[in-house]
Amino acid sequence: MPAKEEFVVTPYQVKGKIDYARLRELFGTEEITPALLTELRRLAGGELHPLLARGVYYSHRDVAALLRQYEGGHPFFLYSGRGPSGPLHTSHLLQFEFCQWLQAKFHAPMYIQITDDEKFWVRAGLTRAETERYGLENLVDILAVGFDPKRTHVFFDTRSIAALYPIAVDVAKRVNYSTVKAVFGFTPSTNIGLLFYTALQTAPCFYPSWAGGAPVPCLIPCGIDQDPHFRVTRDIAETLGYPKPALLHSQMMPGLLGERVMSTTGDVADNALFLDDPPKEVDRKLRKAFTGGRATVEEQRRLGATPEICSVYAMWRTRFAETDEKFAQIDRDCRSGALLCGDCKGELIGRVQGFLEQHRAKREKVREYATSLIVERPPPGAKAPEPRGG
Amino acid sequence: MPAKEEFVVTPYQVKGKIDYARLRELFGTEEITPALLTELRRLAGGELHPLLARGVYYSHRDVAALLRQYEGGHPFFLYSGRGPSGPLHTSHLLQFEFCQWLQAKFHAPMYIQITDDEKFWVRAGLTRAETERYGLENLVDILAVGFDPKRTHVFFDTRSIAALYPIAVDVAKRVNYSTVKAVFGFTPSTNIGLLFYTALQTAPCFYPSWAGGAPVPCLIPCGIDQDPHFRVTRDIAETLGYPKPALLHSQMMPGLLGERVMSTTGDVADNALFLDDPPKEVDRKLRKAFTGGRATVEEQRRLGATPEICSVYAMWRTRFAETDEKFAQIDRDCRSGALLCGDCKGELIGRVQGFLEQHRAKREKVREYATSLIVERPPPGAKAPEPRGG
Repeated sequence: MPAKEEFVVTPYQVKGKIDYARLRELFGTEEITPALLTELRRLAGGELHPLLARGVYYSHRDVAALLRQYEGGHPFFLYSGRGPSGPLHTSHLLQFEFCQWLQAKFHAPMYIQITDDEKFWVRAGLTRAETERYGLENLVDILAVGFDPKRTHVFFDTRSIAALYPIAVDVAKRVNYSTVKAVFGFTPSTNIGLLFYTALQTAPCFYPSWAGGAPVPCLIPCGIDQDPHFRVTRDIAETLGYPKPALLHSQMMPGLLGERVMSTTGDVADNALFLDDPPKEVDRKLRKAFTGGRATVEEQRRLGATPEICSVYAMWRTRFAETDEKFAQIDRDCRSGALLCGDCKGELIGRVQGFLEQHRAKREKVREYATSLIVERPPPGAKAPEPRGG
Repeated sequence: MPAKEEFVVTPYQVKGKIDYARLRELFGTEEITPALLTELRRLAGGELHPLLARGVYYSHRDVAALLRQYEGGHPFFLYSGRGPSGPLHTSHLLQFEFCQWLQAKFHAPMYIQITDDEKFWVRAGLTRAETERYGLENLVDILAVGFDPKRTHVFFDTRSIAALYPIAVDVAKRVNYSTVKAVFGFTPSTNIGLLFYTALQTAPCFYPSWAGGAPVPCLIPCGIDQDPHFRVTRDIAETLGYPKPALLHSQMMPGLLGERVMSTTGDVADNALFLDDPPKEVDRKLRKAFTGGRATVEEQRRLGATPEICSVYAMWRTRFAETDEKFAQIDRDCRSGALLCGDCKGELIGRVQGFLEQHRAKREKVREYATSLIVERPPPGAKAPEPRGG
């Protein structure tokens, strides 16, 4: 990211007011066009997930080609992940809800990576016991969005290392310090775990091809901040004999306090809704959430509010407006001044409380089998394709 | 290593004429004194291994303290390893013969690490299939020196990663790019596998303490070129709650062509005796081996030869003079001119041929159980000691 930009987006830092169109240019990714959305809707059986319909997923790499292959009889698999540095927020689940929708519509195997090693390396204050505990809790929350356990596989880095390492070894030989320094902004004081780590985040992209002995296309829905990891992956994929993964990039979710990203780093617990927040806490946090409202009711009635900067609007947009019609209505009434922030929050609070109650019930059912989905061993007899060029 | 020295010794480069006393000073290690040798002899039941008696192992770290602990009832374990970049030479076995002697005399568990990942990362032309094949063959050769299979454990990196990784993750958080750059001479074009690797070479030092839940002292016999790896290890051991490993350092073995290190890198196959060399090949290679002999017989009779630079003398010294008396006799007759190089070689050739024949017979017995000694899984329930200082 050039220094003149007013924002920074890497897998290890997101700051400033992000200009998403500019970010797409800087990263060199493709726009999700109306034509691509039409294709996605058709192949998904006539439906479009709200995160696509409402532009939260807004950028991609090679998805059009992936869909052509899919239609030609080459199924793909899905890969996404989570760095377990703490309990999940409601916004963390969005990516997985989207993956679950893709799994159901495209009959796709899903691989979930829990990067407990990475988060231990990246956060000075975290112990391995903590990242492991968070990882197991996060996994249960993720699976609770409704993944089909028969087609869902989990890489929990410290438990799955035997399965991931053979591929990571091949990858690591092709990536040097200069590259990770340039891509991730690492410095000489970065620990060697983190320097190595991108090899492990790459491994799941190639795993089904390696395990099955034939190339399987990969689709990765992720925040745009994770794109740099997979640029490294894409640069070396073909040399190692694997297909380049395709990507669907989402915008970052704003925090409740108006931060650009829903993050609780730095003990700003009120910036996010945790999945375990009780109803009263949901009420309290949303009542104080940052909105795009005006200084006075009179002014808001007259001028309307500004949804682009509103954390409450972002929640309607990403999950809580269950139909596009409902979302359009919220959008219209917000902009016109017909809807006041207090009333808008009041309606949302009830929905969030209901969502969390349902989520917690689903989670307890998933808990019984969650760890059984962890891949612990490489497939018997799996051989990496002999890399090209020695 | 300061630039003004005429030699370079790191785990990844050995060049120049090595001044071993100076190297000990530069590395800051301790000399193996006559008093320490007396202690070693006493605790080993009155015997001293030729590699100690003849000064091939010449430097150490903390071995005196280790022996005091041993006498006080705290047994230690042994750890050594091999980077499988090709078939073994006769000189590669010396370190393991020495370990086997220590195992027998001190009833010590032995851990052998086969670093197939490291050699794949360090040598551009090697494939993973090759390092794996060499690793398995090297392992059989190493075990054939007579390790007690009931007290010998093997870490074969790509197969043992599940056992090594939890410790390596802890280690990697404590080591940064600046450190590995300074210690190993790495550059921005070094691949991220090699940058990470020292964490894996450290893991076996702590493994028995981790697996058993109580500190177990570690003794590492190794070439002095490997000391930098374990300086990193020693710097972080106590912070992680483990004892610092003790080290016994050997000099490097000269090659048959007079190279300072017996290496066959660069296709100089005649620089070393391979364990599979047939009798005729042993004869041919030794006949052309570099010696410290004079230009003419007459001159040698009059002035004597120079054993310090002689590859044949090095072989007598390290293995083939079975008693110290025999070695003293060779040494005396060489220096006096009584022994001519051709006669000396003739006697050695027969011994080497016999040694190799016996080695190959032992190897076939070991082959049956070699891979069963590979540690594939971490001990159930093993927890790292909670590191100090977060």
